[in-house]
Amino acid sequence: MSYTVREIAEALGATLLGDGEIRVVRPAEPALAGRDDLALAMDPKYADGLAGSSARAAIIWDGADWRGFGLEAAIIVRRPRYALARLTRMMDLGPAIAPGVHHSAVVDPSAEIGPEAAIGPLVVIGRGARIGARARIAAHALIDAGAILGDDATIGPGVRIMAGVRIGDRFIAQPNAVLGGDGLSFVTPEKSGVERARESLGDQGEVMAQSWTRIHSLGGVEIGDDVEVGACTCIDAGTIRPTRVGNGTKIDNLVMIAHNVTVGRDCLFAGQVGIAGSTRIGDRVVLGGQVGAADNIFVGDDVIAGGATKILSNAPAGRVLLGYPAQKMETFLEGARNVRRLGRLIDQVARLQKAVPKRGDDH
Amino acid sequence: MSYTVREIAEALGATLLGDGEIRVVRPAEPALAGRDDLALAMDPKYADGLAGSSARAAIIWDGADWRGFGLEAAIIVRRPRYALARLTRMMDLGPAIAPGVHHSAVVDPSAEIGPEAAIGPLVVIGRGARIGARARIAAHALIDAGAILGDDATIGPGVRIMAGVRIGDRFIAQPNAVLGGDGLSFVTPEKSGVERARESLGDQGEVMAQSWTRIHSLGGVEIGDDVEVGACTCIDAGTIRPTRVGNGTKIDNLVMIAHNVTVGRDCLFAGQVGIAGSTRIGDRVVLGGQVGAADNIFVGDDVIAGGATKILSNAPAGRVLLGYPAQKMETFLEGARNVRRLGRLIDQVARLQKAVPKRGDDH
Amino acid sequence: MSYTVREIAEALGATLLGDGEIRVVRPAEPALAGRDDLALAMDPKYADGLAGSSARAAIIWDGADWRGFGLEAAIIVRRPRYALARLTRMMDLGPAIAPGVHHSAVVDPSAEIGPEAAIGPLVVIGRGARIGARARIAAHALIDAGAILGDDATIGPGVRIMAGVRIGDRFIAQPNAVLGGDGLSFVTPEKSGVERARESLGDQGEVMAQSWTRIHSLGGVEIGDDVEVGACTCIDAGTIRPTRVGNGTKIDNLVMIAHNVTVGRDCLFAGQVGIAGSTRIGDRVVLGGQVGAADNIFVGDDVIAGGATKILSNAPAGRVLLGYPAQKMETFLEGARNVRRLGRLIDQVARLQKAVPKRGDDH
Repeated sequence: MSYTVREIAEALGATLLGDGEIRVVRPAEPALAGRDDLALAMDPKYADGLAGSSARAAIIWDGADWRGFGLEAAIIVRRPRYALARLTRMMDLGPAIAPGVHHSAVVDPSAEIGPEAAIGPLVVIGRGARIGARARIAAHALIDAGAILGDDATIGPGVRIMAGVRIGDRFIAQPNAVLGGDGLSFVTPEKSGVERARESLGDQGEVMAQSWTRIHSLGGVEIGDDVEVGACTCIDAGTIRPTRVGNGTKIDNLVMIAHNVTVGRDCLFAGQVGIAGSTRIGDRVVLGGQVGAADNIFVGDDVIAGGATKILSNAPAGRVLLGYPAQKMETFLEGARNVRRLGRLIDQVARLQKAVPKRGDDH
Repeated sequence: MSYTVREIAEALGATLLGDGEIRVVRPAEPALAGRDDLALAMDPKYADGLAGSSARAAIIWDGADWRGFGLEAAIIVRRPRYALARLTRMMDLGPAIAPGVHHSAVVDPSAEIGPEAAIGPLVVIGRGARIGARARIAAHALIDAGAILGDDATIGPGVRIMAGVRIGDRFIAQPNAVLGGDGLSFVTPEKSGVERARESLGDQGEVMAQSWTRIHSLGGVEIGDDVEVGACTCIDAGTIRPTRVGNGTKIDNLVMIAHNVTVGRDCLFAGQVGIAGSTRIGDRVVLGGQVGAADNIFVGDDVIAGGATKILSNAPAGRVLLGYPAQKMETFLEGARNVRRLGRLIDQVARLQKAVPKRGDDH
Repeated sequence: MSYTVREIAEALGATLLGDGEIRVVRPAEPALAGRDDLALAMDPKYADGLAGSSARAAIIWDGADWRGFGLEAAIIVRRPRYALARLTRMMDLGPAIAPGVHHSAVVDPSAEIGPEAAIGPLVVIGRGARIGARARIAAHALIDAGAILGDDATIGPGVRIMAGVRIGDRFIAQPNAVLGGDGLSFVTPEKSGVERARESLGDQGEVMAQSWTRIHSLGGVEIGDDVEVGACTCIDAGTIRPTRVGNGTKIDNLVMIAHNVTVGRDCLFAGQVGIAGSTRIGDRVVLGGQVGAADNIFVGDDVIAGGATKILSNAPAGRVLLGYPAQKMETFLEGARNVRRLGRLIDQVARLQKAVPKRGDDH
């Protein structure tokens, strides 16, 4: 598939310079771009790459001498990453799943599947499941009994959507994601060492051998519209009410959302984030890779936590966090700097102690 | 399915007050509970929710004025979470897998499957695999050649139980869990920088380009009775002896148990825990989310580690840990507090240095 | 299958002592070794185990009195772990997948499959996919449309190799690994709080409600020769150029390699490592379990990072790291020690302040 530069400029709402009829097939980094590529050179740092490229068309930074780079056409955009979003959407052909239901899929006769669906090979759809219009469900995915999926879903191969999961429109799940598995919820007959250590902040009292009894997860999962979930990400079912993820929230790979968690809208969670049971996350919260949030806490709207932050207690709205335990980003960085000075400080205090007569001594 | 309040009270061994013939369908949070729900209000904090609810029956806190909340029946329990375990077990209908072997499953003729099994669509069971009585195996799961599974197993969709894995009774695996993959075990022809850095605690010596040679995993995995494993959790095969998990241990999602690890009985590991190769974990050890344990160490019985603790060396029995590196919980929290005071301390020392004549100066 | 001790000694290039015609079936730990096992006792610490064993043959440490342990044959090797690699390779029969294409597999007619392939039950191979010679592809795996796989691949069950992924020879993927899922790449119409917080190191400015717009991943994944990938590990597709992993790199379970990352050759990543978007990792880099690397940084050749290190900025070649944020290993360990002394230091400074007259006071 190819596009004229004019078509692309129009799709991006951008300024076109030069010959709009040149056809390109795909975007490319300037240094690697060939004659049929659209070089992406939105920043002057790409000048060298562009100079060595055989591209005829490029998206360039404002003010570039595009003809001087041998280009025959150029596009100028206002916000480069936003233009990239539109461009890549335009050029993404999506997963190759044939329309209709593949003959090898196992679809329960009671399942409802909306119009124009594409159900791939060896997909399993359970009793009473409901799937909206234009769903694309890739090989080996499972939509279990009674699960509900809105319109325009894109479900990767091996995704497991378990019973009791309800999902809004335009949902995207990457391969092997799991929604609606049982939560890790166990209780001992008598108060456990963990319960006592929490109460005392560190003392578990006398040890007692006890086994764990399972609390089953009956609450399911409820996902809003425009949510995305990454590969091998797991969102557990709630106990008696659903675990919830709000509209517009995007979740990366290998993320753990435990039972009874509530996540607000338009959040962004990077890879390997973990949210422990019953914690509430506000709206527009951004969590970097490997961030953890303890159970039963509240993380306010618009919190931003840098990579590997461990949030052990409530975080107020708008806070920018880093560290373990989580602190204001600047406090954590200052603390780390100060710790590196500690060796010297210890020496200084030792010298001061020698220099200063003991309290009580005569001067 | 519905239950009388009397049936529930009897199943919980609890005190029934009021009309035991009222029927309820499911448990619910007080504020959300309708006429057919059993409101769960085991704590006075639910009083407001209960007041606004249309529930006719509830499990209430001891001493509640249940008639004052408009209830017609009430149940009083001794240990609320334990009651929740029994109640949710009673009301969990389990995965919807039809009895018998689904026609689309691929079962090797030499595999042995116990009575009353339910084998779902597109399941694969390999040569010589043995599966106990009453197994429920969901869609797309694999029980590989020679694997052994005890009675009453519940295997989620997409679970991989590889050759050389032996599992006891009442095993539960959530979707896409992997048991018996190969361990990450590699060696270089000559001593590697890692080996030298470990010996010297930080100096890898002269760098040498070497490639990694694989040590294959022949030892399999051995799992006790009453074990649970979460979604996308991975337990690797041992090298020449099995990786082991003891009776009654419960493991959450996305947990990594490396090759040759031994985990004791009745442990509880939360999401994203990682145990590195050959480490031994005692009995009743509780690890919070994202806890890590280094390779070749020993973590004693009844250790409790809070979220994100990184255990880099042996931990004595009964210790309550937090931090990176792991410390006694109170030591870590005190250290974090002290680091926040460090800026002020540095200033104080600087002022003292100005105030105190240099050692050797005259007074 | 069994082997003579002579065959094993020859395969290991090792010294044989005693009766080379004794046959053994498998390696075993000394204390557990029976008459048909080859006891692995490469270190004097195994002397007690060996003394109690009924093994007739062992690999022993140099200088051991092997006849005194009742052995009839012994093998002496130079580098024990390297010998273990050769021995386990010799004795690993590999996954049990029948030669040819299983009748239940769904293989697109346009896919090319090399000679001597073994394609397991319920495998899906998409349009135009190309698979090299002698591939072994286990149950429920997916090789999606257009993906390319070199010779001698071993693909575990449930592995997802998506469109746009190109892989070299001798690739090994453990169960449920995912290559070529979409990256987490989103942009807001206007500058986001995250972008502002990064620029200011902590201040996100005025909060603005915005939704995330998707940047699609068109760049695929490119994997070299002799690469291994662990269970549930995820390597995302690049945006406009491929995410890359170099020859000889070995990756453990539950690892996250984000979009546009470049990993060099002969690296070793332990379980739950996470590399954020666009970061470049050099050659022979070794990352312990749960290590994280921030996005858009560079980690130099031969860096070694201990377990749970969080690399937040560029790391020079050859550095040995530990901690959060990552520091030289000895600096981090010294810092942790110093923090534990901080309480006492604070007391010392308080006493000094009492002892020393305020600056400006008379002496």
